[in-house]
Amino acid sequence: MTTRASSRALVVPVDTGHQRYDILIGSGLLDAAETWQGLPRAAMALIVSNTAVAPRYAARLRSALAPHYGSVSVLELPDGEQFKDWPTLNLIFDRLLGDGADRQTVLFALGGGVVGDITGLAAALYMRGVPFVQVPTTLLAQVDSSVGGKTAINHPAGKNMIGAFYQPQRVVCDLDTLRTLPLRELRAGLAEVIKYGPIADAGFLDWIEAHLDDLLARDAGALGHAVRRSCEIKAWVVGQDERESGLRAILNFGHTFGHAIESGLGYGHWLHGEAVACGMVMAADLSARLDLVPADFAVRLKQLIQRAGLPVRGPALGADRYLELMRVDKKAQGGEIRFVLIEAPGRAVLRAAPDALVRDVLAVHCG
Amino acid sequence: MTTRASSRALVVPVDTGHQRYDILIGSGLLDAAETWQGLPRAAMALIVSNTAVAPRYAARLRSALAPHYGSVSVLELPDGEQFKDWPTLNLIFDRLLGDGADRQTVLFALGGGVVGDITGLAAALYMRGVPFVQVPTTLLAQVDSSVGGKTAINHPAGKNMIGAFYQPQRVVCDLDTLRTLPLRELRAGLAEVIKYGPIADAGFLDWIEAHLDDLLARDAGALGHAVRRSCEIKAWVVGQDERESGLRAILNFGHTFGHAIESGLGYGHWLHGEAVACGMVMAADLSARLDLVPADFAVRLKQLIQRAGLPVRGPALGADRYLELMRVDKKAQGGEIRFVLIEAPGRAVLRAAPDALVRDVLAVHCG
Repeated sequence: MTTRASSRALVVPVDTGHQRYDILIGSGLLDAAETWQGLPRAAMALIVSNTAVAPRYAARLRSALAPHYGSVSVLELPDGEQFKDWPTLNLIFDRLLGDGADRQTVLFALGGGVVGDITGLAAALYMRGVPFVQVPTTLLAQVDSSVGGKTAINHPAGKNMIGAFYQPQRVVCDLDTLRTLPLRELRAGLAEVIKYGPIADAGFLDWIEAHLDDLLARDAGALGHAVRRSCEIKAWVVGQDERESGLRAILNFGHTFGHAIESGLGYGHWLHGEAVACGMVMAADLSARLDLVPADFAVRLKQLIQRAGLPVRGPALGADRYLELMRVDKKAQGGEIRFVLIEAPGRAVLRAAPDALVRDVLAVHCG
Repeated sequence: MTTRASSRALVVPVDTGHQRYDILIGSGLLDAAETWQGLPRAAMALIVSNTAVAPRYAARLRSALAPHYGSVSVLELPDGEQFKDWPTLNLIFDRLLGDGADRQTVLFALGGGVVGDITGLAAALYMRGVPFVQVPTTLLAQVDSSVGGKTAINHPAGKNMIGAFYQPQRVVCDLDTLRTLPLRELRAGLAEVIKYGPIADAGFLDWIEAHLDDLLARDAGALGHAVRRSCEIKAWVVGQDERESGLRAILNFGHTFGHAIESGLGYGHWLHGEAVACGMVMAADLSARLDLVPADFAVRLKQLIQRAGLPVRGPALGADRYLELMRVDKKAQGGEIRFVLIEAPGRAVLRAAPDALVRDVLAVHCG
């Protein structure tokens, strides 16, 4: 249930059964004192950000945190999915150990999905676990990656292959940070917003179709609603199934094809949201070919993704390479690829599909 | 409560509140079919071992597991604490990804503490978590490191700094593997056995003093009792406090000084158990200097450690270096070193001590 905590923030609670934390959503949260109250106390806090985001927001966050910690320092990681790897993760450990950080030290992940995933994993592993707070500054991170405790780095052989389930203490989504987000990244974030419609809420899909222009124009009210509804759905799913033993897998709609695109091209060429967008087009078509949804639902989704300025055509990796890459997907079981498919607008299912049908989909939508 | 499960194995249950698993202790367990029943099913299992242990036991374990998995393969890591690092951990990920291992794949850690810690961490992180089984083949691993779910690798700046709490599905302690253990490693394991006396069970300390010669002679009955009582105490402590928010820290008796020795000399010179043994001598002396225990208790413990053939004199790193190394200990808080001290035979406490007193201890016992 979403409540309004203060003049500024909407609060979406997340409850995984053994951990509970809040997502705060609103304008002006970064500088508001109340945003940072009630977090674990420590002598030291470390803000982990990247070279693109830190110059804009790190000093403000540092000031806001200063009253709560003896020292607050900033670490700037290189920017980009291609740096979501062990050497970059180790930069965080080097800094923490160099600064004498103890087991109480609180990490703040200030940035997009890469910063959040890598900082979360550093928090999970440093001295076997220190507290951390997500401060997502991209639409994609606010609606998806910062919520639910999935942390990871990539391995050359597959995306997010090395990681942990580790929940943050709080997620702070300051909508003002979306104002300066590059348009390409805003669009990429919209891919994950759109995702929640087909898998969980047909009414939300209608709403996105009706308000897409407002979202692209960064209308504060529209973005606020999109972030809030996305977080509510994600919080509900994660509350049912933190460890992805079942239901949670539906959040990966479009991701099986999408991860193959990202891995196949090498990280850093397509944005994650772009790959997911294109992957949703393929997964929706696969759903239609399996007679789960009418063909016009797949067309409708493709049109929305296209209107959002997102790619609907995959790169020409060749069907064999796609299949090879998808077989290392984390949802695969005994070499069988399992796809998140739509069985009705607002309802998803995890299942395998015949290779021949997958090849048909790839032939139509790639190259 | 320890029960007898079959003709062969004693069973010590571990219950952390949200996970439950058994420690099996006995002779002939490696080859017994019933040892491996009831584990999670999977298409694939990977035995992770090292170049010292694999030639002796990997083929036998592989045969025993063959009926339960479609494929069972073996990965041999380099042997030694100096390889408990990221590149070695990554060898496991490379193999898993190269073999197309999925999220059901079960890892078996066959070896001592290093193999167990690193394999456990690989299991915690591969695809955000796959099941694993501990098959400890050293006394130290059987009585300590394989039980309780602490996994880790070292960082050049500190031991076990990067890790996770991640529980195994089962721990299988085949006492027969201790027969071929090098004497130096047997002694190192006895250090952790001795540890349980001062911190938790004064009667067990009496028993160890009375049976030390039997233990050094590898008497099966004596070793069985030592492993069982050690595991019972460890299981009880871990059941109270899985995440080391309090009580569990007592298991680190001797480890603050000990880790400083290991880090200061560089991993691989002293065995972990040797460093802990010497660390216990210092921590007991510190306890006496703080008037927590009579001085003759510290002398008694030192004599036992000496009789076990373990070092009672630390290397000459210099007091400043010792203090610097101990300040990065995971139990430190806000730069203050916290020691596990003995407040009565069988009862430990976690507390700080004045630097001057620590320097006195170092002056007497080092160099």
